[in-house]
Amino acid sequence: MKKKFQVVGIGNAMVDILSHIKEDFLTTNGVEKGIMQLIDMPRAVELYGHMGPAQEVSGGSAANTIAGIAALGGRTAYVGKVKDDQLGSIFAHDLRAQGAIYETPLAAKSETHETGRCMVLVTPDGERSLNTYLGVSEQLAPSDIDDHMMAHAEWLYLEGYRFDGPDSKAAFAKAIKACTAAGGKISLTLSDPFCVDRHRADFLEMIRDHVDLLFCNTAEMQAMYPSDSLNASMAMAAKEVSIVVCTASEKGAYVLNDGGMEHAHAVPTQIVDATGAGDLFASGFLYGLTSGFDMLTSARMGCVAAAEVISHIGARPEADLMELFQDHGLV
Amino acid sequence: MKKKFQVVGIGNAMVDILSHIKEDFLTTNGVEKGIMQLIDMPRAVELYGHMGPAQEVSGGSAANTIAGIAALGGRTAYVGKVKDDQLGSIFAHDLRAQGAIYETPLAAKSETHETGRCMVLVTPDGERSLNTYLGVSEQLAPSDIDDHMMAHAEWLYLEGYRFDGPDSKAAFAKAIKACTAAGGKISLTLSDPFCVDRHRADFLEMIRDHVDLLFCNTAEMQAMYPSDSLNASMAMAAKEVSIVVCTASEKGAYVLNDGGMEHAHAVPTQIVDATGAGDLFASGFLYGLTSGFDMLTSARMGCVAAAEVISHIGARPEADLMELFQDHGLV
Repeated sequence: MKKKFQVVGIGNAMVDILSHIKEDFLTTNGVEKGIMQLIDMPRAVELYGHMGPAQEVSGGSAANTIAGIAALGGRTAYVGKVKDDQLGSIFAHDLRAQGAIYETPLAAKSETHETGRCMVLVTPDGERSLNTYLGVSEQLAPSDIDDHMMAHAEWLYLEGYRFDGPDSKAAFAKAIKACTAAGGKISLTLSDPFCVDRHRADFLEMIRDHVDLLFCNTAEMQAMYPSDSLNASMAMAAKEVSIVVCTASEKGAYVLNDGGMEHAHAVPTQIVDATGAGDLFASGFLYGLTSGFDMLTSARMGCVAAAEVISHIGARPEADLMELFQDHGLV
Repeated sequence: MKKKFQVVGIGNAMVDILSHIKEDFLTTNGVEKGIMQLIDMPRAVELYGHMGPAQEVSGGSAANTIAGIAALGGRTAYVGKVKDDQLGSIFAHDLRAQGAIYETPLAAKSETHETGRCMVLVTPDGERSLNTYLGVSEQLAPSDIDDHMMAHAEWLYLEGYRFDGPDSKAAFAKAIKACTAAGGKISLTLSDPFCVDRHRADFLEMIRDHVDLLFCNTAEMQAMYPSDSLNASMAMAAKEVSIVVCTASEKGAYVLNDGGMEHAHAVPTQIVDATGAGDLFASGFLYGLTSGFDMLTSARMGCVAAAEVISHIGARPEADLMELFQDHGLV
């Protein structure tokens, strides 16, 4: 029997503040290129003060993935914490308007922190450097996890970034328990190589004990399973997890499953803003997997969705992904 | 002697909530196409609930114009009311980050209304239908006008839309008095044909008594000065105002001055989102005029700036306008 949700995502709920900058802005302002760095409110205010005009779009890694699956007509829900403020309303609206269920309890009005935001600085090469003020997204706790919803998920999609909070590991554990008890499966994205460094021991334990599908890119793969070569690292991962999916930018994506490896080519495109490439790859892959497509087709769906999202500003799809799947002969 | 500001703009301060919609969304939701309609908060909530995912960018007609002049390196300031909330911070940031002075006192914390917003619904033809919740921008009052700033303006740029508020006409009067007493000049944009209908008598009086430069498009021109032909309407306007600038979409723009008329051709472009076309035309024209260029060159600068802003989502320039002026041999 089909479950109510193909995928339920859990992660940092946030609004992206996107701005195009020149390369030297990064060094002048002490921003490390190409990665996600956590910042506090004073630093957020400082950086925002130096940034040029921006545009605001809903973001959050797992939320982008869920929005992508919803855009494809997939049955999805999302759990991640916002506050009852204007950015929180924007985040909730955009996810629901895309067709996803979003019912996480709001952070208390008395809470001094606000809805999380991520300053996304896009350099002329299309690379993005993320500066994240987590705000109330950091407060995700077991009480925010609805066991009933988790039990209705075919797949859970956990965002590695959300390991950056005291109660969130417990929230993940609760979600995993409720999901797997009802026969659901667990996927995890490693999110970022520095995120891997911060949480390696916890990640390793979780991967061994619970994860059925691991998403990562080559940098995260090598941070998680250090070795002489990407192939060796992937082989190490494949010993631990049933399905390993490793994205490799312009080289496409590798899927390791059942002792074999398949490779999906990247879809050539003009990179305007790389934000959301990995998130939307996961959308396409999870949509394919939960819709009965084989691994290679699912990976190709991931590559098409990723190519769409990097061809414009913002980390959520603008074009009709299903039409693109048709154009590529995938459906 | 050069004044501190080339242009000071006064208008509705707001954040645009932009969404691409299908044509039938307008009829299903009772939205009139191509114009600005004022809506209250319940209607704003209703419409937002029906809209798809959106992106937020700073807007406000005169604010877009000022941002465009600032982007060109012009000396500008802006007056328009926001509240100390997240959308208010976004609006203030984007204007200042562009290089404009923005110091309007914030609406009181006790105020129940929020920072204004405009739901911009973009149909596949690139046309935009505006649904404006004015919020605190409606409260602009004489006490918000700093006479000192007005006296430092070579030109004042008044947004016709802001006639939709009880104290704002008095605020305009105060600003005009302080500006002209110091030798400054007054420009006005008619904003919208329905805005003209709402305020015709006041507009006529103000134009006769104070306006040195009138901006409008052909629909606004014919609403303001009804006649058998556009030429006759423009001639009527030119009897009242020293400089009349009438934009005519793909036909470019007409400038009437000193008994003569000049015509600037439109710059061909792919229309993605028509929002801000008139606003950015005014940026280019006012930048040219206050930088010592002749009327025709100024109008051509307006056409180049307008073409840039309609080639992408959002009503503020993304490309380097000065580079575009160079490409067109204008500077």
